[in-house]
Amino acid sequence: MSKDRKTDILTTIDTPTDLRKLSVNELPQVCQELREFIIDACSTNPGHFGSNMGAIELTVALHYVFNTPYDRIVWDVGHQAYGHKILTGRRERFGTNRKLNGLSGFPNPAESEYDAFIGGHASNSISAALGMAIATELQQETPTRKVVAVIGDASIAGGLAFEGLNNASSNPNDLLIILNDNDMAIDHNVGGLNSYLVNITTSRRYNKMRNGLYQFLKKLHLIGENSKGSILRFNNSLKSLLSKQQNIFEGLNIRYFGPADGHDVENLVRILRTIKDMKGPKILHLCTKKGKGFLPAEQSPTVWHAPGKFNKETGEIIHSTAPNQPCKFQDVFGHTLVELAEKNDRIVSITPAMPTGSSMNYMMERFPKRSFDVGISEEHAVTFSAGLAKDGMLPFCCIYSSFLQRAYDEVIHDVAIQNLPVTFCIDRAGIVGEDGVTHHGCFDLSFLRSIPNMTVAAPMDEHTLRHLLYTAQAIEHGPLSIRYPRGGGEIVDWRCPMQLIPMGKGRKLTDGNSDIAVLSIGNIGTTVAHAIEKAQAQGIDVAHYDMIFLKPIDEDILREVASKYSRIVTVENGTIVGGLGSTVMEWMNDNGYSPRIKRVGIPDKFIAQGTVAELHKLCGMDIDSIVTLLTTKW
Amino acid sequence: MSKDRKTDILTTIDTPTDLRKLSVNELPQVCQELREFIIDACSTNPGHFGSNMGAIELTVALHYVFNTPYDRIVWDVGHQAYGHKILTGRRERFGTNRKLNGLSGFPNPAESEYDAFIGGHASNSISAALGMAIATELQQETPTRKVVAVIGDASIAGGLAFEGLNNASSNPNDLLIILNDNDMAIDHNVGGLNSYLVNITTSRRYNKMRNGLYQFLKKLHLIGENSKGSILRFNNSLKSLLSKQQNIFEGLNIRYFGPADGHDVENLVRILRTIKDMKGPKILHLCTKKGKGFLPAEQSPTVWHAPGKFNKETGEIIHSTAPNQPCKFQDVFGHTLVELAEKNDRIVSITPAMPTGSSMNYMMERFPKRSFDVGISEEHAVTFSAGLAKDGMLPFCCIYSSFLQRAYDEVIHDVAIQNLPVTFCIDRAGIVGEDGVTHHGCFDLSFLRSIPNMTVAAPMDEHTLRHLLYTAQAIEHGPLSIRYPRGGGEIVDWRCPMQLIPMGKGRKLTDGNSDIAVLSIGNIGTTVAHAIEKAQAQGIDVAHYDMIFLKPIDEDILREVASKYSRIVTVENGTIVGGLGSTVMEWMNDNGYSPRIKRVGIPDKFIAQGTVAELHKLCGMDIDSIVTLLTTKW
Repeated sequence: MSKDRKTDILTTIDTPTDLRKLSVNELPQVCQELREFIIDACSTNPGHFGSNMGAIELTVALHYVFNTPYDRIVWDVGHQAYGHKILTGRRERFGTNRKLNGLSGFPNPAESEYDAFIGGHASNSISAALGMAIATELQQETPTRKVVAVIGDASIAGGLAFEGLNNASSNPNDLLIILNDNDMAIDHNVGGLNSYLVNITTSRRYNKMRNGLYQFLKKLHLIGENSKGSILRFNNSLKSLLSKQQNIFEGLNIRYFGPADGHDVENLVRILRTIKDMKGPKILHLCTKKGKGFLPAEQSPTVWHAPGKFNKETGEIIHSTAPNQPCKFQDVFGHTLVELAEKNDRIVSITPAMPTGSSMNYMMERFPKRSFDVGISEEHAVTFSAGLAKDGMLPFCCIYSSFLQRAYDEVIHDVAIQNLPVTFCIDRAGIVGEDGVTHHGCFDLSFLRSIPNMTVAAPMDEHTLRHLLYTAQAIEHGPLSIRYPRGGGEIVDWRCPMQLIPMGKGRKLTDGNSDIAVLSIGNIGTTVAHAIEKAQAQGIDVAHYDMIFLKPIDEDILREVASKYSRIVTVENGTIVGGLGSTVMEWMNDNGYSPRIKRVGIPDKFIAQGTVAELHKLCGMDIDSIVTLLTTKW
Repeated sequence: MSKDRKTDILTTIDTPTDLRKLSVNELPQVCQELREFIIDACSTNPGHFGSNMGAIELTVALHYVFNTPYDRIVWDVGHQAYGHKILTGRRERFGTNRKLNGLSGFPNPAESEYDAFIGGHASNSISAALGMAIATELQQETPTRKVVAVIGDASIAGGLAFEGLNNASSNPNDLLIILNDNDMAIDHNVGGLNSYLVNITTSRRYNKMRNGLYQFLKKLHLIGENSKGSILRFNNSLKSLLSKQQNIFEGLNIRYFGPADGHDVENLVRILRTIKDMKGPKILHLCTKKGKGFLPAEQSPTVWHAPGKFNKETGEIIHSTAPNQPCKFQDVFGHTLVELAEKNDRIVSITPAMPTGSSMNYMMERFPKRSFDVGISEEHAVTFSAGLAKDGMLPFCCIYSSFLQRAYDEVIHDVAIQNLPVTFCIDRAGIVGEDGVTHHGCFDLSFLRSIPNMTVAAPMDEHTLRHLLYTAQAIEHGPLSIRYPRGGGEIVDWRCPMQLIPMGKGRKLTDGNSDIAVLSIGNIGTTVAHAIEKAQAQGIDVAHYDMIFLKPIDEDILREVASKYSRIVTVENGTIVGGLGSTVMEWMNDNGYSPRIKRVGIPDKFIAQGTVAELHKLCGMDIDSIVTLLTTKW
C-alpha cells in the first residue's frame, strides 16, 4: 500500500463494532479508504475487481446498520464481498486473498463467523437467507435476528433465485433482499428480467402525474386514504404502468423499495434504518456501477470483472503472457467452433452468461443469430439446447464444470433420454486454482459417466480438442461431453487440420518395458508424459495411454494393458470416486483380470484455493508425485 | 368400455387430421367422448386421472387449430397428455398405458412423432419449446412451424420454467405458452406466483372502471388512441392494479392473454385461431378444473391425481391393500418423523410439492409451522434446508430420487461444502414401476457417493429406516442421505423402539459355507434374502451382508468378506455404474484383494415402464436371477 495516502479510519476498524462507533458523515471517508485499499490490493494480487468496487457503500452501510455477525448477511456469489472481508477482521490478511492457506476469494463460514453462508455459485442467497430467517422465527431468538440477502441483477434471474422469491412470502419471515443492480453479469446482462429492471429505473414520468391519478382513484373509492398497503401498491402499479412494465416483486408478495442510488452511503444508512424492522419479506433495489471509483473499470466492466494485475496509477492491465505462449484451451475451443460453424450451418452455440470466459464471444461476433447467451441459467441452457437439437440443430452448449452440476437433471432428462446430439463443452474442468472450493470442476467425469447414452471425452491437447469438436458435428451421435481445463496447454501451433476421432478410441503414446502402464484422460496426460520422461531418465520405461474417452472406454487398450502389465496407474483431473480409475477397475474385474491399480486424481474431500500447481501437488497429481509412483515398488 | 354409450365420433379419429375435418360445434361431443374414454380406461388401468380430465378441451382445441405433428406441442410433465395420446393414433393401444412394452404414461418422442419432447420432470416445456421455436426460425422452414408449450400453474413456478420465461423474449420467436391453471399441483399449490395467479383470475372490478380511467389517462396524453400496445399494457396494468398484483409475464416481455375458461372448447378454438399467427412470445392463461367432468375427482383433486382403480359409476376408489399388509416405506417415514419431531423441536421438514406422495403430510398436520411445502422447486428445497440447518435447525428434506437430480449442485455447494446436518430422505429410489423412464431413481447412489462429506445410507427394512431417521437427529453429523423405494417392505409390525446405528456400519445377516457372499444395500436386500433361502434349499449356503451404508463403506465387513470368500455378488437398486459394486471393487483393489465380483443392479441404459417385478426381472434383480447367480459357477 502506498504510504502517503491518508488512511486514518480504515486501520482503526478491526470489526464492524469499530465501524458502528463512527458518525454517519464519516462513512464516505471509510468508503473512499476501502476503495483505495481494494485498488491497492487487487493491483498486485489479482482477484474480482469490478463487483467489489460497486458494492463498497452497500457493504459499509450494511455493517453500520445491522448487528453483524449476530445479524446475517448472505452474499450471493461473493464477487462483491472483499469490502465485507476487510471490515470483518481480515484486513491484514487480505494480501493472502485467493492464495493457498490464505483467505478464500468468496464468503466461507469456515473462514469467519461474519460469512453467514457459502458463496460461489450464483442465485443461492435468497433461499439460504430465507431458511435462516425462518430458523430465527422458529427459535424465537431475542433480539430478533435480521437476515439480509445481497444479490445482483444477473444472479436474481437464475432459476434458484426465482424459486426463493416465489417461496419468500409463504411463511412468516422478515427477510430483506437487496438487489444490487449494476446492469451487468460478468458480461453484459440479458433476459426479460434485465430489461424490466432497466425500465423500472429509467421511468421519468412517474412523479409528474402521480397526484392527479391518485385523486381520481380516490374519488372512485378504489383507493383508501388510510391504507398504507394500497398506496404502496398504487405507487408501484403506477410506476409499472409508466415504465411500460409491471412490478414483478410485488406480484410475488414481496414489498418493493427503490430504486435508490447504491453509492450514496449516508442515504443508504437512512433507508436501511427505515426498512430494517419492517415485518414481512421485502426487496430493496439499488442501482450501482461495476468498477465504481476506478475509471478504467467503470468504462470496461467486462474486462475489469477480474482483470489480473494492473497498474493502479495508469489503469493499464499487466498481461503476463509472453508472445508465442500456447493459446488457452478456451480460445482453441472458441476459434475452432467458428471454423466449424462456417461450414456447418446447423451448428449453434449456447452459454449461460460466460461468453468471454469461455471464448464463445468469437462465435457470437461471427454468428450472432446462432449464438445464445442465456444469462445465469444453466438449467435453461441445457434444456434449450435439447429443444434446438430436437428440431434439427447441432448445439454446442458450453458450461463450466462446476456450474454444469446445476443442470444435471436436464442433462439426463432432456438430453440423454432422448439421445439428442448436444455437445457439452465443459470448461474449467478439474482443479481451477484461485477460485477455490466452489469452482473446482471435480465431479463431471463421475456424474456424467453414470448417465446412459452419454459419451464422455477429454482431450489431452489442443489438437485432440479440435478433432473432438470436429467429430462432434461430423457424425451422428447422441450427447457428447468434451471437458478441458482452465488455461493453456503446451502446443503453440494449435491450428492443425481437423480429423475424425473414432468414438471410444484412445491412443498409445509410449510403449513400456517395465511392469507398469499409465492410463490418463485429459490434459493432465501432459503432466504424465513429463513424469514418464523423468522416470525414463532413471531407467524405467513406462507405457502411457491417452484414453481420450472415459465412456465408452477403449476396451482394446484395457485388454492390451491387462495382458502386458501387472501394475496400472490411472490419472485424471477429477474425483477418484467413480471416474477413470473406477472405470478401469470395473472393466478389469468384469473381464477377469486383477492387476494392481493406483488411482491418481482429486481425493474425496473438498479442496480449497491455491495455484493450480500447488493444488495438483496437494492432490498428488504433479510430475514429482507421479514419478515417485512410477519408480517405487507397490 | 361400456357398449351402450354413444361413441360415434371418437372412434373415427385416428389422427388429428380426422379431428380437423369436423365442424367446431361437433367438438363438445368429441370432448365428452374423450372424457368418457379416459374415465373408462383409468377406472380399470390406473394412471394419472385428474390432470387429464382437466385438459380435454385444451387438447382438442390444440389439435384442431394447430397442424400437428408438423406444429409442435410440448406438454410439461405430461400428466395431462392422455387425451393427446388418444387423438394421435394411440386410442386402441391405450389399454397398454403404463405397462411393460405398452404406452408410456408420459409424452415420449420414441413412441410417437406427435410427442414433440420428453415429459416427466416438471418445468422443462418452455425452454425446450423455445429451442424448437428458434430452430424453426433459424432453418426458415415453410410454412412456419408453430410451437406451443403447455404448462401447469405448479410447474411454471419451477426455476427452470422461470429461466425459460426470462429468456423467451431475448431472441425472435413466436412461441405460444399455454398456462393451464387449475390452482393445484399434485397437492395444493403454494407460493407467491400461485397467489398471484389466483388474484389475477378473481379480479372483479376491472371492467367496471376501465373506461373512466382510460379517458382520464388519454386526456393527460399518457395513452395514445392508436397504439394497440399501449392499450394492451394499459389493460394489463389496470388488471394488475385492481387485482392488487402486477402482471409478471408482461414484465418479462411476454404478451399476456387471459384468463379464459379452459373448458369452453369452441371459445378456445376462437382464441387460439386469433393468437396463433401473432409474432413474438405470448402466454395464454386458461382456468381449468382438475378432474373436470367426474364429480368425485373435482371434489378431491389430490386423491384423484392418480387414484388407482375405481368404480366409474359410484366413484369409489378400489383399494387393493388387504388389512395387515405392510405399511409403505413412505408412511413409516412420515409417522416416524412425527414421533421424532415430538421430542426434538429442532426438526423441520421440507418437501417440494409432494406432501401426500412422500407422507410428509403427517408432519404438516402435526407441526404446520415446522413443515414446508415449497412447491415444485427442488433446488430451493435443498438450499432452503441448508439455510435452516446453518442457523440451528435439523431439516429433513424429502425428495424423490429422480427429482433430486435437479438439486445436485445445491447438495454439493450449499450443503456438503459447509458440512451441514441436512438429512435427505430420498423417496422413490430405484425402479419405480409404471411411471417409467423419467421417474426411476437410478442415479442417486452414484451421484451422491462422489460428494465429499456426504453419508449415503439405504435401509433394508422398515426398522432400519426408523433407526436411521432416529440416528440422523440424535448425533452431530454432516449431510446424510437415506434412500428407500416406492411402496412397502415386508414388516407389518414396524413400530419398533428406535436405536442408534453407528455411521458406516453394516450387519451380517447370514453366514455362508460356500465361496460366495452377497453384499446388498437397501430394500433389495429382502429379495436377496429370499434368493439365499432358495439357494440354501439347493444345498448352497451363501453369506449375506446388509451394508446399510454405501458411504462410508463398512471396511470391517469388506475385510471379512475378502478373507473368507473368493466370489462376491453386490446387489443394489440403482445403476451399476459407480454404486455399491464399484465401491466394493475400489476397496478390494486398494487393499490388495482380488475376489471375483459380480454387480447386480440397474444396467447402464434407460429403463422404460412396467411393474416393479417385471422391471426387476429385466434388470436381473429378481429372486430367480439372483438364485441363478448364486448357484452357478463363474
